[in-house]
Amino acid sequence: MSLNTFGRIFRFTTWGESHGLALGVVIDGCPPGIVVRPEDIQAALDKRKPGGSKFVTQRKEPDTVKILSGVFEDDRTDGPRTTGAPISLMIENVDQRSKDYADIRDKYRPGHADFTYDAKYGLRDYRGGGRSSARETAARVAAGVIAEKALAEVLDDPVWIRACLVQMGPYKIDRENFDWTEIDKNPFWCPDPVAAKLWEEKLDEARKAGSSMGAVIEVVASGVPAGFGAPVYGKLDADLASAMMSINAAKAVEIGAGMDAAALSGEENADEIRMRNGRPHFLSNKAGGILGGISSGQDIVVRFAVKPTSSILTPRKTITASGEETEIQTKGRHDPCVGIRGVPVGAAMMALVLADHALTHRAQCGSVTPAF
Amino acid sequence: MSLNTFGRIFRFTTWGESHGLALGVVIDGCPPGIVVRPEDIQAALDKRKPGGSKFVTQRKEPDTVKILSGVFEDDRTDGPRTTGAPISLMIENVDQRSKDYADIRDKYRPGHADFTYDAKYGLRDYRGGGRSSARETAARVAAGVIAEKALAEVLDDPVWIRACLVQMGPYKIDRENFDWTEIDKNPFWCPDPVAAKLWEEKLDEARKAGSSMGAVIEVVASGVPAGFGAPVYGKLDADLASAMMSINAAKAVEIGAGMDAAALSGEENADEIRMRNGRPHFLSNKAGGILGGISSGQDIVVRFAVKPTSSILTPRKTITASGEETEIQTKGRHDPCVGIRGVPVGAAMMALVLADHALTHRAQCGSVTPAF
Amino acid sequence: MSLNTFGRIFRFTTWGESHGLALGVVIDGCPPGIVVRPEDIQAALDKRKPGGSKFVTQRKEPDTVKILSGVFEDDRTDGPRTTGAPISLMIENVDQRSKDYADIRDKYRPGHADFTYDAKYGLRDYRGGGRSSARETAARVAAGVIAEKALAEVLDDPVWIRACLVQMGPYKIDRENFDWTEIDKNPFWCPDPVAAKLWEEKLDEARKAGSSMGAVIEVVASGVPAGFGAPVYGKLDADLASAMMSINAAKAVEIGAGMDAAALSGEENADEIRMRNGRPHFLSNKAGGILGGISSGQDIVVRFAVKPTSSILTPRKTITASGEETEIQTKGRHDPCVGIRGVPVGAAMMALVLADHALTHRAQCGSVTPAF
Amino acid sequence: MSLNTFGRIFRFTTWGESHGLALGVVIDGCPPGIVVRPEDIQAALDKRKPGGSKFVTQRKEPDTVKILSGVFEDDRTDGPRTTGAPISLMIENVDQRSKDYADIRDKYRPGHADFTYDAKYGLRDYRGGGRSSARETAARVAAGVIAEKALAEVLDDPVWIRACLVQMGPYKIDRENFDWTEIDKNPFWCPDPVAAKLWEEKLDEARKAGSSMGAVIEVVASGVPAGFGAPVYGKLDADLASAMMSINAAKAVEIGAGMDAAALSGEENADEIRMRNGRPHFLSNKAGGILGGISSGQDIVVRFAVKPTSSILTPRKTITASGEETEIQTKGRHDPCVGIRGVPVGAAMMALVLADHALTHRAQCGSVTPAF
Repeated sequence: MSLNTFGRIFRFTTWGESHGLALGVVIDGCPPGIVVRPEDIQAALDKRKPGGSKFVTQRKEPDTVKILSGVFEDDRTDGPRTTGAPISLMIENVDQRSKDYADIRDKYRPGHADFTYDAKYGLRDYRGGGRSSARETAARVAAGVIAEKALAEVLDDPVWIRACLVQMGPYKIDRENFDWTEIDKNPFWCPDPVAAKLWEEKLDEARKAGSSMGAVIEVVASGVPAGFGAPVYGKLDADLASAMMSINAAKAVEIGAGMDAAALSGEENADEIRMRNGRPHFLSNKAGGILGGISSGQDIVVRFAVKPTSSILTPRKTITASGEETEIQTKGRHDPCVGIRGVPVGAAMMALVLADHALTHRAQCGSVTPAF
Repeated sequence: MSLNTFGRIFRFTTWGESHGLALGVVIDGCPPGIVVRPEDIQAALDKRKPGGSKFVTQRKEPDTVKILSGVFEDDRTDGPRTTGAPISLMIENVDQRSKDYADIRDKYRPGHADFTYDAKYGLRDYRGGGRSSARETAARVAAGVIAEKALAEVLDDPVWIRACLVQMGPYKIDRENFDWTEIDKNPFWCPDPVAAKLWEEKLDEARKAGSSMGAVIEVVASGVPAGFGAPVYGKLDADLASAMMSINAAKAVEIGAGMDAAALSGEENADEIRMRNGRPHFLSNKAGGILGGISSGQDIVVRFAVKPTSSILTPRKTITASGEETEIQTKGRHDPCVGIRGVPVGAAMMALVLADHALTHRAQCGSVTPAF
Repeated sequence: MSLNTFGRIFRFTTWGESHGLALGVVIDGCPPGIVVRPEDIQAALDKRKPGGSKFVTQRKEPDTVKILSGVFEDDRTDGPRTTGAPISLMIENVDQRSKDYADIRDKYRPGHADFTYDAKYGLRDYRGGGRSSARETAARVAAGVIAEKALAEVLDDPVWIRACLVQMGPYKIDRENFDWTEIDKNPFWCPDPVAAKLWEEKLDEARKAGSSMGAVIEVVASGVPAGFGAPVYGKLDADLASAMMSINAAKAVEIGAGMDAAALSGEENADEIRMRNGRPHFLSNKAGGILGGISSGQDIVVRFAVKPTSSILTPRKTITASGEETEIQTKGRHDPCVGIRGVPVGAAMMALVLADHALTHRAQCGSVTPAF
Repeated sequence: MSLNTFGRIFRFTTWGESHGLALGVVIDGCPPGIVVRPEDIQAALDKRKPGGSKFVTQRKEPDTVKILSGVFEDDRTDGPRTTGAPISLMIENVDQRSKDYADIRDKYRPGHADFTYDAKYGLRDYRGGGRSSARETAARVAAGVIAEKALAEVLDDPVWIRACLVQMGPYKIDRENFDWTEIDKNPFWCPDPVAAKLWEEKLDEARKAGSSMGAVIEVVASGVPAGFGAPVYGKLDADLASAMMSINAAKAVEIGAGMDAAALSGEENADEIRMRNGRPHFLSNKAGGILGGISSGQDIVVRFAVKPTSSILTPRKTITASGEETEIQTKGRHDPCVGIRGVPVGAAMMALVLADHALTHRAQCGSVTPAF
């Protein structure tokens, strides 16, 4: 049923709750012989980890990853290498202030999964949201590092996956200002320095008011060869939609022109093709790099919208588990804009989907370097 | 790998090309004992089928369905009933004017999957788009009928799935005018009679100009009990995103507030809860009926954007299969707005996803009537 | 759930009942570009088909296969070639004498699935055993032809799959007489001409007495490269066990030494290795070509035991669907030794498992020609 | 691809190598609300664990299990209960004497997976067999405990799963002496006290001679309701065959009469049915409780043969990784009859298959208490 598993061939299964002993991921189907060092994974986790600025939760988690299996090193392997066996990664939870959540065990927080988990399972681990916590995404980021390495292993040319925030609250970036080199210069992964300034101000206001803001994340993969994907339920875009929508708080996914595609004319929408340097060259990228569910060789462009953090300090109407009307004010340590931490998660999901499709393509079609 | 299969437990596999002998679907995992008559499926196919108005392709296909297996009737079964064995449905192709496509076998139509199929597979069935044709969706609509029946079988209370067009080209409906009873009164499934008038005019213009328009489809399921879905990669919204994005020409999927959720404040976004008639009652539905990937008992609201039909009469720049620059003008019989026919397909996908989640829920949690 | 589907990457789904309109199979994940002609499949079906001798059921089925999708031909493809899309094959049922089964609809035939289908589903298609009939294996044989072609496509060197009957009733072949060229010279696929003579006599006795006999089928694949398979639940032998046990009437599966392995000493059992012509060479094959779930390059040797046909003319004690004790005598047209027709089915399942593992190996490890 | 995952709905994924930091299992799809205490799992692990007698490996592993996720306890849950989220279990390795294996890193041990792992992956974790070690089965036994609890949760009446050794080397038990109460009275899980005596003597001889013995394990499940299983590739017996064949060193699987079924006449084989206490009652159980792939309500009877341990002290001919002929003598700590420890593993696999089929049945057919 694959409830907590993603992928067809490069498959990963995550486990763990926000305030349990640990969380982790098991990756199966990874090609052998790939060098995987704990420090590579650690570097990615450090980028995502809580406590980095005042704009993310103040929970202090070192997020130290342990590689428990699937990687082997001796004096002949020249570094720890994947063996083809399942790779088990574990991150221990350290800073679980479970008492913070004691008073919400009986009340359903609006916008959270408290009510629906109880409705489904009849009980829930309410500490920090349990399984529904965005803390699970640490496991995705760890797995994403291995996915990127797997992708590099099977492709001749490198794939470059980048992600950024293109909207915070109602404030979009100005595409004229777009500059990838800006994303590490502000706490928002914002590619527009002007927008970053505005966001800082607006998010600080929201944070101080005990409120929160939503966001839109854009993930771009460059260098993906034409030919990844498959009809009809194995479409690359269908898998990306599932991947991004599985991220906590995601409410929409767009490929290329996305929702705006509806308003285009047929002439505007269909990307024309010319030859350049002996290869097909598209004159625009409304398609977001995917035609008929299969990559075209253009940049794969995906966006997803994340709702504002549901944990806010304003008291809100709700009910108790026994059906009494009440109010709740969510204390605890929360991100005023959970979308910020969604940036590395979106990039990780892109890597995971592409690695899986690279292997799927290799399975059915043999070569990973299509004719075009 | 499930390339052409969808679902975990209620699984269906479609096959067939636009201009092959036939197309079809095999449904596996369907509960036994459900009455399925060919005429029930036929009625749904008739709604979707080509040739219904001047706004859809003029290809004449009777779309007659045959039930080849999985259903049995004798004097004790009181109608043809599912046996629990795979249900095979077949629709023969009748009106394949393959010669219409003879001149495009060497040229890649912009916006179509011609180029990417060749890049992936090294050859393609170019007749009418082959496997990438929206003709495949007839199989989904047929399967959707059985999904709806399965859903009714496992639930105490009925689920009501409806779909409509809420935007054509840049023209959105006025939500004030929204009326479900309107959707059968115009050729667009439009719930706003004023918008329907405008669309008729605009689409006629586009059709005559040899152009095409995009659209946004909204699918609403009412009566879904709380508890369908699962963490983390088995989320109901993640599956809906995959389902809708797998539909031809889809470029975006929204749940509830969708892309607009990014612009809401935390206070606006989180739907408050009260009690009504002894049951939880939400004061708004920004969530689109899904929290933490699990249904809340509210209406499930999904929208997807469909790009304008890529087959247009305006000549467009493209290349040949051997890499020469050229132009193409797509003749043949096409929908000026393929989104119209996407309406029954979207409804069918909703039914298929919900039937699958109903059975998945029953598997893990036993009851299909959760506590709430 | 894959109830009626087999395989990871090269996946096939069968459908159809013994006395329905048709039966068929949908193959997904097949590599593109493979020439598949209806006559290739027909030749294999003709070998399996009923009515070939007095030792198999006298039902007259032409078993004519139709290729409905997934294969395309034009003047450039040099024969009908797979496109990478799902391949749908259909065989129509012609000679369904359903009235023969009218008197058994209320009685459970001992040894058949009548009772268990009713217990599970609450109803059953009792005509000729419905879904539980060995007629389903025609679809496997058809799919097996495509599997063999896929295998040839991905491997440099040919794989040779052969199957024979090595035991009928209590009468085993003499391994000293084993000669593959004999199997087409008798109606039993028997590699030992002396045993074939005896079997003819014994089976004729059983047939005339209205009784039936069991059998053991051996399937051997030569030329499989080392490296197919995977730990721990993806083992090649685990998949072969599942494949062969899924064949109607199968009650046991052996790999290599099989049950006899238990009685060997450690010294006798472990196949020693030497070098020959610059390649590893095993001095014996107790392992049946599989070590740790992965092929070793030796012959893959699988055997499965098939129980005697349960349809016999001797009256047997049973009950009715309403729980009354009664007797039943199974008339109709049946195989006195269903194991005979199990020979091509076993070979087909071997091809299907190997094709799937070839693609699985290519997915994870890239090359299909391992170092050894 | 499910390489290291087993099951459709109640799915588990194992990970870990013999001499890595730890090994473990992630169980997904488990019903919520089931009490799972570490001590329950520990008790089962203690039965399987190494070092119990002179007849099993002398490696000292405490095999202490940690429950890392999926179970939650507060003052209202009355014990730690499953939440429906993935259950992660971990067992740390303590006594890895990796130096014991240093001299075999370059030589392929006959009968082991050394050669095939290298052929497939190009490298291997040679310490103690790495992923191919029977140490992986500790994870199965741990998962099996939860499977048994899940089975008890969904069924009204208890299922009783028992396993024993019915043959060691060439020495079979005498069925006349069969007594389940004997299995805890000897170090072999032998139900025949006379055979147990003989085995002790024979295995001691083998052990002292540096040799090893094979075995046959029988697993019996009583109380399984009629209706578990499904056509055609989801057959209960096909899944049991896959499950048992996936156990290290297994070379054959039998259901009911097994290989002997081939030698029976149709009359002997088909189990007749009468009524007893208002329920169907079979007069024999040649079928091993499964007809048409679906349970009949009789005892499910499965046997599997395990080859003698390949690690023996006698020098054996082999080759090195670089293709030179050599000899090897396997030192280290090994089981003289690995089949002994296969007994709890076989019982665990039975529990895991049945739990999965119980949920699969509930998914498709609703009730877990079929009509019969």
